[in-house]
Amino acid sequence: MATPDDIRATIDQYAERMTAGNKDAWLELFADDATLEDPVGSGVKHGKEEIAAFWDFVRTLSAEMELRRTGPVRLAGIEAAFPFEVITPVGDAKYSVPIIDVMTFDDDARITSMRAFWDPADMSPIE
Amino acid sequence: MATPDDIRATIDQYAERMTAGNKDAWLELFADDATLEDPVGSGVKHGKEEIAAFWDFVRTLSAEMELRRTGPVRLAGIEAAFPFEVITPVGDAKYSVPIIDVMTFDDDARITSMRAFWDPADMSPIE
Repeated sequence: MATPDDIRATIDQYAERMTAGNKDAWLELFADDATLEDPVGSGVKHGKEEIAAFWDFVRTLSAEMELRRTGPVRLAGIEAAFPFEVITPVGDAKYSVPIIDVMTFDDDARITSMRAFWDPADMSPIE
Repeated sequence: MATPDDIRATIDQYAERMTAGNKDAWLELFADDATLEDPVGSGVKHGKEEIAAFWDFVRTLSAEMELRRTGPVRLAGIEAAFPFEVITPVGDAKYSVPIIDVMTFDDDARITSMRAFWDPADMSPIE
């Protein structure tokens, strides 16, 4: 079983690699048969190919984005949830949207499922 | 379908009624066949009778507790996630533990499932 430290490390890398735009390293954090639902309710992607296509889609919408954790990771066995915001530039402005990701992990602390809770209506400008 | 405002109202009442120790009013927020998993991984309670027994168990551990939301509710259709802390007195001290609840809702914005992400190891004293 993955240790709490392993799981925390995966979550940190997940945010860092997404922020850095490092697609391949980000994909390595997922198990081969992982699922991804982002946002929750929008349909579930299955496997690395669909998850890679999701990355491409997101980056088409916004080439640049920063994931900033806004509170501690909540661990519960092989599952975890954590609050963060995504900051994206829109023209000369920057927008923030609050998100909570819920993930499950395999024995190697790779992500086996990810569900992202957020609402586009909650996107707001920041200075 | 429940509106975002309906769901937000249920979540606010959930925290208020738990903090106030108002068991019956808190139970009214759940659908009859609701499930509850708190913490995640500890087994799923089914229906109001088991959820009422969960309340009694929690109150045996700590008769007093305050739920304090620490960030915005993240809505995603008929599901939601939100970060909070629970503050409980232990002797002369107070302890806090960070939690994220994930819930689903029916058409009347009653809770149909609740999963609580937290780890007893993250409990820490506050002044």
